Amino acid sequence: MSVADQPLTTQLARYAATTQYSDLPLPVRREAQRSLFNILGCMLGGARHHGVTTADQALAPFTGRPAATLIGRGRQTDVLHAALINCLASGIYSFDDTHEQAVIHPSGPVAAAAMAVSELKPVSGPDLLAAVAIGIELTCRLGKALTVPPAKGSMAWSGTGITGGLGAAVAAARLLRLDPAATRTAIGIALSQAAGFRAMHGSLCTPLMPAQAAQTGLRAALLAQAGITSSPAALEGRYGFLSVFCEQPDLDALSGGLGERFELLHNTYKPYPCGIVIHPIIDACLALRRTHAIDPNRIATVAIAASPGAMALCNNRNPQDEMQAHVSLHHWTAVAFIRGTARIQDMDTATAVRDPVLIAFQDRVQATLDPAKAADAADVTVTLTDGTTHTSRIEHGIGSAVRPMTDAELEVKFAAMAIPVIGEPRTRALMAQCWDVDSLADAGDLARAAG
Amino acid sequence: MSVADQPLTTQLARYAATTQYSDLPLPVRREAQRSLFNILGCMLGGARHHGVTTADQALAPFTGRPAATLIGRGRQTDVLHAALINCLASGIYSFDDTHEQAVIHPSGPVAAAAMAVSELKPVSGPDLLAAVAIGIELTCRLGKALTVPPAKGSMAWSGTGITGGLGAAVAAARLLRLDPAATRTAIGIALSQAAGFRAMHGSLCTPLMPAQAAQTGLRAALLAQAGITSSPAALEGRYGFLSVFCEQPDLDALSGGLGERFELLHNTYKPYPCGIVIHPIIDACLALRRTHAIDPNRIATVAIAASPGAMALCNNRNPQDEMQAHVSLHHWTAVAFIRGTARIQDMDTATAVRDPVLIAFQDRVQATLDPAKAADAADVTVTLTDGTTHTSRIEHGIGSAVRPMTDAELEVKFAAMAIPVIGEPRTRALMAQCWDVDSLADAGDLARAAG
Repeated sequence: MSVADQPLTTQLARYAATTQYSDLPLPVRREAQRSLFNILGCMLGGARHHGVTTADQALAPFTGRPAATLIGRGRQTDVLHAALINCLASGIYSFDDTHEQAVIHPSGPVAAAAMAVSELKPVSGPDLLAAVAIGIELTCRLGKALTVPPAKGSMAWSGTGITGGLGAAVAAARLLRLDPAATRTAIGIALSQAAGFRAMHGSLCTPLMPAQAAQTGLRAALLAQAGITSSPAALEGRYGFLSVFCEQPDLDALSGGLGERFELLHNTYKPYPCGIVIHPIIDACLALRRTHAIDPNRIATVAIAASPGAMALCNNRNPQDEMQAHVSLHHWTAVAFIRGTARIQDMDTATAVRDPVLIAFQDRVQATLDPAKAADAADVTVTLTDGTTHTSRIEHGIGSAVRPMTDAELEVKFAAMAIPVIGEPRTRALMAQCWDVDSLADAGDLARAAG
Repeated sequence: MSVADQPLTTQLARYAATTQYSDLPLPVRREAQRSLFNILGCMLGGARHHGVTTADQALAPFTGRPAATLIGRGRQTDVLHAALINCLASGIYSFDDTHEQAVIHPSGPVAAAAMAVSELKPVSGPDLLAAVAIGIELTCRLGKALTVPPAKGSMAWSGTGITGGLGAAVAAARLLRLDPAATRTAIGIALSQAAGFRAMHGSLCTPLMPAQAAQTGLRAALLAQAGITSSPAALEGRYGFLSVFCEQPDLDALSGGLGERFELLHNTYKPYPCGIVIHPIIDACLALRRTHAIDPNRIATVAIAASPGAMALCNNRNPQDEMQAHVSLHHWTAVAFIRGTARIQDMDTATAVRDPVLIAFQDRVQATLDPAKAADAADVTVTLTDGTTHTSRIEHGIGSAVRPMTDAELEVKFAAMAIPVIGEPRTRALMAQCWDVDSLADAGDLARAAG
């Protein structure tokens, strides 16, 4: 049976529109809550970033009646602008979440769209969680279907850019109570506006691509609700989404076992604010520094055996600014050895990216491809000036699917991002409310509490 | 020299930002004026279409302070919504314009974005015309570079969807007076949001894809002006636009002879409101009907030797609604033989698409592929019930590059679309103003006159 003969769009729409919160297994509800918790913290963490402020101020003259919260920015705006800006904030430090296999960051577009709708009309906490769960689930499935073998996909697309609109659309469609047919229409509209490629890495356009997905996904649901039509076979049809974005998609990854197996359970949360494929390298560097009490001045060379993903996306020496530092393994290797940290403030341009000590250290770092390394693995070998060598081998980095962040670690991460923006008392209250979201009668309270 | 070694994005940005109106040869200025004239008529013609009204009303609650005209809708809105809705209207009857080789419809996104900016800040008539000219020029060049041999591209992408944002961005960037560096940034942002594929044909999503390009292109210029960054090599860079949208782009078509040869001169205007590849078939049917005074009841079969484009995009029997009729050669063959016309009112669902006489006639129509036929060519052979046959061979349809619409024909087309919307006196005044646009001190007057 060819791709075109399988009613994939209809299947996904029916699943998205008819699944109840009570149909979701407890671990799935729990992981949806962790995803929402983590991404809300990231929205707050990025809320005052200059790139978010720039985009918000540039577009504010063209926004509508205040109805939805700009998280961490002390203001309301229209729901479409809120979806754009809140998603932008969630990804601007590359500190969000990751489906490792698909190398996408699913929660930003989904949560930004869903939270915007939660202020457009009354929805309950379970409604919001189910929308987030199913939006993330379908985003991850589409990401896997495009890129993870046996699929033959291209690394060049922005995975989140091209898949996030689907998740945002179905999350919004659920909260707008669209039926399966209208949900299918929303999926079609959203997919027809799917966009993004990785040449943008290193610029503010990188987080703008998922933000665009959040907004177009939400808009697709609003347009479908109003009666705008789209192809009923947007995914599988001739000249459809799958035909243009993937040479050979994995259809089972997309629609097999819907409601039985859950990609959401493999979502992971970033412990460091940079490209996920750098994380095991940071783990290794921090472990070496700690275990051997290494004085960075005594380091002659750092040799990294890096995964294909790390080499393809982050083998970038001497970043010139913060956005380039997000995707520079050299920068973070220097930070880890010299500062013993890997925090948001370690990529600030003035005190970090342009720090001459960090810049000089990068010359000693050499990464080489190890085709056998998974994306969450790395070997780092440090050679000291006296010839001594030490190696750290990371099989699975902290925050990977095998070594997930605990709830307590997520709280530390959340607090570090939120407290500078909304202060400690509001942060503590918001975290408690977020862990208790399934008991909220009006889920819009969550967004409003994070303004 | 590989693609990545050529600073294509920089070249296009420099050309777009530094070319003066006076640098444009007279025929180029003239064709820009004809393109603007034609597309303004199309915006008016589509202004009251139910799809435009649906999209406008669905999104109006989220729009900003009135500052830009919704053409033909008697209302103002914010510039981003105006760009979206005006471009949507311009394409909703498939009656706009076409660069034949690239099979794109360049003016909608460019003019909608440029006209919106003309109400955001004061720009002169020549400013507006130059922005339209250069926006269309670069859109057409990008379209050719992706699909016209020697390029090896895919028919599956919505050509206008993926190229229109570039044109909208450079037109807006010019009117915002961005320098070459900021223009390059705007191009990058716009390209990173390029989207659309042809599975949407037959639905309201088809004109929504160019509309999305108009809006994201304009927004890209506004964001670049404010300081949002993008890749300086969005076109040619690793994992860049050209790498994802085309297996083997034609770089000479994209950037060769900038300022010397002009694709804009090959823009054409549609005489019939449907897919351009159907047009020579309509010409042939109308010619047969006229020449031989054929009674449609005496027609046994209609055999069409159709171009690859017509077969790929419009070989769709029994359309169910207006949007499907846009891309059905069977529908228009029936209309041409039975009614002797091919007008907007010939695809109205109630009186045309569902007309049992037209539906029954379609069964007698059979199209077969003639690989040698250009997109503007077709042979139609009609066999009567008495065995008589007649053939009409169209080498170049009316409105093609070889047989362009005259100014007088464009006026007839404009008036037919505009008069039902704004009445005859305003239509006549608007046409005169449009032909005289290069003498306008404030080009925003044009949009306001078309409200």
